[in-house]
Amino acid sequence: MKTSNIVEIISVGDEVLRGFTVNTNGAYLAKYLFDRGYIIKYQTNIGDNEFDVTEAIKVASKRASHIFLIGGLGPTEDDLTKEILAKYLGRNLIEHKESLLNLEKYYKGRNRKLTKSSKKQIMVLENSTVLNNLVGIAPGEILEENGIKYYLLPGPPREFHFLVDEYFDKYLEKEVFYSEKINVHALGESPIEVRLRKLGIDGDITVNTYAKGAFTEIDAISYSKDKTKFETCMSLIKNEFKGFTFEENSLEEAIVKRLIEKGLKISFMESITGGRLASSITSVPGSSNVLKESYVTYSNEAKIKLGVDKDIIEKYSVVSKETARSMVEALEKITGADIVVSVTGEAGPVPSVKDVGTVYSSIKYRDEIEDLSFNFSGSRENIQNSSTTSILSRILLIIGG
Amino acid sequence: MKTSNIVEIISVGDEVLRGFTVNTNGAYLAKYLFDRGYIIKYQTNIGDNEFDVTEAIKVASKRASHIFLIGGLGPTEDDLTKEILAKYLGRNLIEHKESLLNLEKYYKGRNRKLTKSSKKQIMVLENSTVLNNLVGIAPGEILEENGIKYYLLPGPPREFHFLVDEYFDKYLEKEVFYSEKINVHALGESPIEVRLRKLGIDGDITVNTYAKGAFTEIDAISYSKDKTKFETCMSLIKNEFKGFTFEENSLEEAIVKRLIEKGLKISFMESITGGRLASSITSVPGSSNVLKESYVTYSNEAKIKLGVDKDIIEKYSVVSKETARSMVEALEKITGADIVVSVTGEAGPVPSVKDVGTVYSSIKYRDEIEDLSFNFSGSRENIQNSSTTSILSRILLIIGG
Repeated sequence: MKTSNIVEIISVGDEVLRGFTVNTNGAYLAKYLFDRGYIIKYQTNIGDNEFDVTEAIKVASKRASHIFLIGGLGPTEDDLTKEILAKYLGRNLIEHKESLLNLEKYYKGRNRKLTKSSKKQIMVLENSTVLNNLVGIAPGEILEENGIKYYLLPGPPREFHFLVDEYFDKYLEKEVFYSEKINVHALGESPIEVRLRKLGIDGDITVNTYAKGAFTEIDAISYSKDKTKFETCMSLIKNEFKGFTFEENSLEEAIVKRLIEKGLKISFMESITGGRLASSITSVPGSSNVLKESYVTYSNEAKIKLGVDKDIIEKYSVVSKETARSMVEALEKITGADIVVSVTGEAGPVPSVKDVGTVYSSIKYRDEIEDLSFNFSGSRENIQNSSTTSILSRILLIIGG
Repeated sequence: MKTSNIVEIISVGDEVLRGFTVNTNGAYLAKYLFDRGYIIKYQTNIGDNEFDVTEAIKVASKRASHIFLIGGLGPTEDDLTKEILAKYLGRNLIEHKESLLNLEKYYKGRNRKLTKSSKKQIMVLENSTVLNNLVGIAPGEILEENGIKYYLLPGPPREFHFLVDEYFDKYLEKEVFYSEKINVHALGESPIEVRLRKLGIDGDITVNTYAKGAFTEIDAISYSKDKTKFETCMSLIKNEFKGFTFEENSLEEAIVKRLIEKGLKISFMESITGGRLASSITSVPGSSNVLKESYVTYSNEAKIKLGVDKDIIEKYSVVSKETARSMVEALEKITGADIVVSVTGEAGPVPSVKDVGTVYSSIKYRDEIEDLSFNFSGSRENIQNSSTTSILSRILLIIGG
């Protein structure tokens, strides 16, 4: 690893500093750079205040080689980041023609008159590389002075993400030679880490795990140019977790993709999860091909109305393996879907028939029923979310093969 | 305002620094302190590294009067915060008896043997005020040296929140005399700010708005002891937004509370929102009293099966005011619920019958039907979420009075 890739991220703005907004931009950028081999040493949040911003830039210039300034590029008097950096580096601010055209178009489209304060946004530092902002007004900038690279990025997350994702791959030096991500589900982060360590991966390759709630992301980064070594390492990892991996961004995306490929329909009868399974699936584009109807049966009467066996509920209670089975059978009759899934449980905080956190689910696919039971702990939200992700994970395992 | 209440928050840990974890603790603490009149000047994130932590404490001691250190109190060798602060201040670390008893109980309950590294967690700085951690092992600490107050807090969010919420009201000096929060929905943040400015609120009272997605939180803080003045101000604000305010933490919580009070049942027939309305309501404890059943009809066939008029869908299209009406009427027949709500729309990214973002909803309550139509923009997620919150907001307006 080089030592000329020390990063400091400075987030400018009262909203973030005071905790009115959680600093997701800073976290995103840090992980983005970390994945590319940069060494993140400092993150600093300061307010919209000339003295503090100047001091922060001064301090960072002494200890970092890549300084990212996020926020403070807007049209108001509070937005000072660019002006302060220009003053600090002794550079002039000049109009950026392309951004000006973009700004004029924006105002014309809204029948509004261009003001002086809005023009402030399209001024850039002399001799900087300008990153055109196609989803907003203020452009990003990259510039170098005394061997230190400075990066200016707007604070609104949509614009910030656009500029990072659109330009950084092109303009940032790659500090790593290869990188790959893979998602593993249905296994905990700790056992995954233990198994990764046992693989004895080469020191030139760094493997990090990243708990994403419903699954674990494994990030592998190679600091060596040896492509074969990296590919061998990736095969080792993929083989170790075979059957439990997917490449999509979420469990529901992986499920919808496989259901579409196989031409299958899915339907839910949800009690404890109250619509979370259906809304997870319907969050994915194209899900209308695989989910046609779904039911939230949040009472005994609603279940019985849809054909769940009243005697079973009375005999075994509504939170039971038997009721989950009866639900899934009733659901299949109503919908004729290829995969039918039921879930019933105690979300709390006050238990009604079983301990809080007790959950039963049945999944029927190709004449086989799989019965699941869980004992979750934590808050109502946690129990409802854990139920949802555990069931989605099981569905992916069942249809994945 | 005093100038002896300058805050620096230092978050210690590679996970946060590298963006593997978003720093929600820092944001929570900043807002907590801001609401109590403290001046948040700096937030710094650094890694698990002795040199960097020492430097950060040194720098903070020169510029802040209240220094909060979050993280690095755990049992591993990486956890160094407490040891570094002790060294910096020249204080000894001593065993904390109550925490040791707690630790021994914890290990006994799990049939595990107490290790030296786990005992590291219950060491505290001499002469500090110890905040017993009742949801974990490592206690919090408050100590003073040379007029500067230092606070040590564990990083795991559950433990961090417990210590802040349990002890800070008791141990932190109050920098403000009165404070109150109120939520306003169905109005945008900008118009709310404009209306607040017009109220001409006294300079001793600071009013901030905080966009929460589905609604806006208004926080009022009084730096003056004049209680009557503060109460008059709050009346002004409440009166200004009369009919649009609630005190609960979310729209769904406010809705469920009012439905329970009035003994009303609600049910949904959801197309575009795919279960989001039902899962919002069922996220609230006690919601089984108000929601008995709900439907996700994500296809024409599913709608028709539940009684929606096929001819209406054919004539007006499935995304239309008329279909939303027919859905709500069918839903009422099936469920007999007091409030029945339907929603249909285009979530995209590819439009099927109308422009992406077109949404129709009908709400029937007490023989009156209200028809809503929206044109949202943005991603699929944004359209689905905006539909959900806009409809929840309307439901609250309808049943609120």
